[in-house]
Amino acid sequence: MDDRYERSIRCSLGEIAPDLVLRNASIVDVMSGKIRHGAITIKGRRIVGLYEDYTEYADRHTRIIDLEGRFAVPGLIEPHIHMESSMLTFSNFATVVLQHGTTTVINDPHELANVLGKRGIRHIINEAMDTNLRSYFTVPSCVPALGGEFEESGAVISSDDVKSLLLYNNIIGLGEVMNYPGVVHCFPDILAKISETYRARGYKKNNLIIDGHCPTLKGKELTAYINAGIMGDHECSKGEELEEKLSKGLYVMLRDGSSAQNMEELLDYVIEKDIDTRRLLICSDDKNPHDLISKGHLDHSLRKAVALLKSKKNPRINVFDIIRMVTMNAAEFFDFKYLGKLSIQSRADIAIFDDIESFRPFATIANGKLVYMRDEIMPYFHEYSHPSYILNSVNIDRDFSPADFRISSNAKIQKARVIKLIKDQIVTEESIEEFVPVNGEIKANVDSDILKIAVINRHNHKGNFTVGLIKGFGLKEGAVASTVGHDSHNLGVIGTNDADMDVAIEEIKKMQGGIAVVKNGRLIASMELRFAGLMSVEEPSQAVKAHLLVDRAYKELGGTLSSAFLTMGFLQLPVIPELKITDKALVKMTPTGPEKVSLLL
Amino acid sequence: MDDRYERSIRCSLGEIAPDLVLRNASIVDVMSGKIRHGAITIKGRRIVGLYEDYTEYADRHTRIIDLEGRFAVPGLIEPHIHMESSMLTFSNFATVVLQHGTTTVINDPHELANVLGKRGIRHIINEAMDTNLRSYFTVPSCVPALGGEFEESGAVISSDDVKSLLLYNNIIGLGEVMNYPGVVHCFPDILAKISETYRARGYKKNNLIIDGHCPTLKGKELTAYINAGIMGDHECSKGEELEEKLSKGLYVMLRDGSSAQNMEELLDYVIEKDIDTRRLLICSDDKNPHDLISKGHLDHSLRKAVALLKSKKNPRINVFDIIRMVTMNAAEFFDFKYLGKLSIQSRADIAIFDDIESFRPFATIANGKLVYMRDEIMPYFHEYSHPSYILNSVNIDRDFSPADFRISSNAKIQKARVIKLIKDQIVTEESIEEFVPVNGEIKANVDSDILKIAVINRHNHKGNFTVGLIKGFGLKEGAVASTVGHDSHNLGVIGTNDADMDVAIEEIKKMQGGIAVVKNGRLIASMELRFAGLMSVEEPSQAVKAHLLVDRAYKELGGTLSSAFLTMGFLQLPVIPELKITDKALVKMTPTGPEKVSLLL
Repeated sequence: MDDRYERSIRCSLGEIAPDLVLRNASIVDVMSGKIRHGAITIKGRRIVGLYEDYTEYADRHTRIIDLEGRFAVPGLIEPHIHMESSMLTFSNFATVVLQHGTTTVINDPHELANVLGKRGIRHIINEAMDTNLRSYFTVPSCVPALGGEFEESGAVISSDDVKSLLLYNNIIGLGEVMNYPGVVHCFPDILAKISETYRARGYKKNNLIIDGHCPTLKGKELTAYINAGIMGDHECSKGEELEEKLSKGLYVMLRDGSSAQNMEELLDYVIEKDIDTRRLLICSDDKNPHDLISKGHLDHSLRKAVALLKSKKNPRINVFDIIRMVTMNAAEFFDFKYLGKLSIQSRADIAIFDDIESFRPFATIANGKLVYMRDEIMPYFHEYSHPSYILNSVNIDRDFSPADFRISSNAKIQKARVIKLIKDQIVTEESIEEFVPVNGEIKANVDSDILKIAVINRHNHKGNFTVGLIKGFGLKEGAVASTVGHDSHNLGVIGTNDADMDVAIEEIKKMQGGIAVVKNGRLIASMELRFAGLMSVEEPSQAVKAHLLVDRAYKELGGTLSSAFLTMGFLQLPVIPELKITDKALVKMTPTGPEKVSLLL
Repeated sequence: MDDRYERSIRCSLGEIAPDLVLRNASIVDVMSGKIRHGAITIKGRRIVGLYEDYTEYADRHTRIIDLEGRFAVPGLIEPHIHMESSMLTFSNFATVVLQHGTTTVINDPHELANVLGKRGIRHIINEAMDTNLRSYFTVPSCVPALGGEFEESGAVISSDDVKSLLLYNNIIGLGEVMNYPGVVHCFPDILAKISETYRARGYKKNNLIIDGHCPTLKGKELTAYINAGIMGDHECSKGEELEEKLSKGLYVMLRDGSSAQNMEELLDYVIEKDIDTRRLLICSDDKNPHDLISKGHLDHSLRKAVALLKSKKNPRINVFDIIRMVTMNAAEFFDFKYLGKLSIQSRADIAIFDDIESFRPFATIANGKLVYMRDEIMPYFHEYSHPSYILNSVNIDRDFSPADFRISSNAKIQKARVIKLIKDQIVTEESIEEFVPVNGEIKANVDSDILKIAVINRHNHKGNFTVGLIKGFGLKEGAVASTVGHDSHNLGVIGTNDADMDVAIEEIKKMQGGIAVVKNGRLIASMELRFAGLMSVEEPSQAVKAHLLVDRAYKELGGTLSSAFLTMGFLQLPVIPELKITDKALVKMTPTGPEKVSLLL
């Protein structure tokens, strides 16, 4: 027999000393739905004793912590996040979420894959293994989003890449299959990726998941999508949508992200309609650094969800059902037999909160190790060393000049397509506007809030680019540029004048990734995102500060959007309606698919 | 991509015709906990459409059944049964339970293993594959129960045998680890079997289970037992016991067997205390042929459980929670991703009942095939051909005579140990009684209801035997004999006189297994159990009739026990307190373990 088990048995009989005893805990037993008072005893990486107190068997190596009645919850499980949105490196991201009780994260490194492909994914997997966070990954299934004639990302993930990446132990499936029209119409490319995942189940022990993404899909098309073997979805925005997806077999993740916040509306429906919660999870999808650090991670979601529950009269759903959404339910979805509950032989992943209303974090045990305790200075992770291709991902050989952004027209009145922003949404509208060219040129017009936008390829060294017009971004002077631009993450720049746009690009090239805010030819604020042009290699608090500073600078220039750089980050995504801009073209999403369209009509 | 999935997608879009459409169903959606009206569409072995009606896409090969509002429930899952207790061959057992809505059975062929070892298990696996029942097996972990100097069974299952049996696809784990003292004290033999199961997880796709058996175990000893990796238990008799086991991490099966009926008491506790039900299952453990055929299988358990639920005022637990205990919860325990729920891409295993109160079976779909429909004559399975070693398992070369059962004593008053039966229980007591030998011999005394009992080895040809005394069996004349004697299944005989005992043995030898009732030297009733001396190869209805006839004959001879042959069947089991008899000795279970004891004191 494996020594580990015999050691566990002997420890539970008091024959050998435990490593860690958490005394006087209010143990949240998600299995039977009760709070039980007692101790949790840990040997190695596992829980070997529950309720009975093993303090008497301690030796001088045993650590004993009196929790004074605080609540021990199974370590929280994040079922779907793109950690790139945190703008932190994985090591820093891990440190932050562990402090909020999260001990397991399933990460879909979709952004990184678009920039650096397979080698980027491999790098982040290796980095993750050096942290205390139990880190799993899914292979991004749709890299690039569209590609071909429409856009050029830094890399392509083919079905062969899916196959080879699935060989990694901590890759546990295929990431959200966003190309749902492709699935429903049996496009070979996306079906091949799903197929590779099926096949890998044959040699992998765990049941590989195939995660979904199908906003508003319903009826027979939804059925067809699920028939491809899709297992989950996190895109529900309405209760009826959730109910149909659930009843046809999908696990549904209630999204509580920084921008997309569906959890509370959906949960309200679930409670009102008494929908069973066991196949419901809570996910973040995307969390910006500020939210993650100041508000929290899944602990924050729990706080809001429990508050919502308490506002209801006699709900059948209880607080255990809520907690299960970030513990047991997620563990079942991913087939983690030893996670998501506090039971004998479970992994010792434990989140300790002051109570289960405020969910204020007190301590976190990850894999048997105390990794966070309030008011205690904990050992920090050594800095991870990143290779040059990660730190130098802005590959533009071309030198730009203001003239590159000129929009010429000899017409008297020139009609043009303008990307019109819709407040707090990532969808845009096409707006046909009339311009009066001056000296054969259309310029930005701050009075009508129409600015220039350019997207420049930063992957292929050629620096090919597209110029367009955008309405609703709010700048009155200067320009901003960013290397975060879903999904291809080319360099985007928006400006009131061509000269400042040119300066902003130069600043980004100097920084090798990040956000630049320029006024009158001078950089007034910047945030370095050295890691693939997406994430900061600085301390989390520094990253948050820099993020606040660039946002403040944007507002100084007249900006009015609440999350300008997030909004800007989605202007390159051509699969989202209606009008978007990539390094190759203005792209309009029509009912029959995407089309390249001209700026001037 | 696997053709099957593409075919499913195309069928769900109406591009190709379905095989079977169940229209107008009340679909029990255990995922969200709702009844939903609509259709179920099946292609091949899977559900490819739910709710939406696909009748319009039918072709002439499509079968369409209008359920007229009847209730479609996921095919029921039996998580733990020794099908030998049904006294039916596997083919017949399968036919019977399929008619009651059971589509998956996890069978622990513990009795067969004690008689015929590995080859018996292999035979029944092969037989099961020819039925429509989804049949899985666990490797019996404790064969023989005790062995060594205490008893001799027909076979031993070693840890090497466990290893080789686990290679079978439909063997999904290690059967109930009854030797819980052995686990707690780290006995190498039982730990080695558990260890082989762990190791097999490395090459088997599904997560192999390790099932438990630990009646009344609690506190640190229970913790130690679970630390060995034990995952489930079906031996709870009290609510508090269930709660502790559940809260420490075991799945708990509420047993609703023919003799051991714990379900209702436990369920009452669960409802009253509002214990979460998701890790609760319902199992049969043992069902006799009469109960199985006249009352039903898990449908009968559902009927009783729902009736109990309806007697309660405002329980938080609802009818879906009850149904999940025999569907979804079991599927989760065994890691059956595509069973236990009616969802897109689930296996088309469906139990159709008139309603979810009476649970009167209307039809059963197993793996996409209609295998039972009320008032329809369904194709029957061809008879399975059993080899000679199965049909000739009473291997006793010795010729017996009445004198073999003589108990000699020259004392005036002879004290002797008597096995004292306790009504409706399998535990016995040791009773020290005083006898007045007549002509140097102690005889059965029907006035004080003390009879003779003998157990004869039927496996090793030698026919070694032990003679003892038993109180409470009730016979006033004649003798009964049976080849069913847990766990070694040697030949047991109980009689009022030595001559009838001798005749009963001869009749059993002639039949090659079964039950014989003898009066005045003549056989008055018998039940042939040709299959390993445990099961009947006849039609289920014939087996039930024969079983009733031998019971009636027992009562004609003065018998008073309600299930005499079941009670008799446990008299050989030395691990159950207090006094038992095997082919080798009278065995007394003491607090420090089993001991061979003498008949006369």
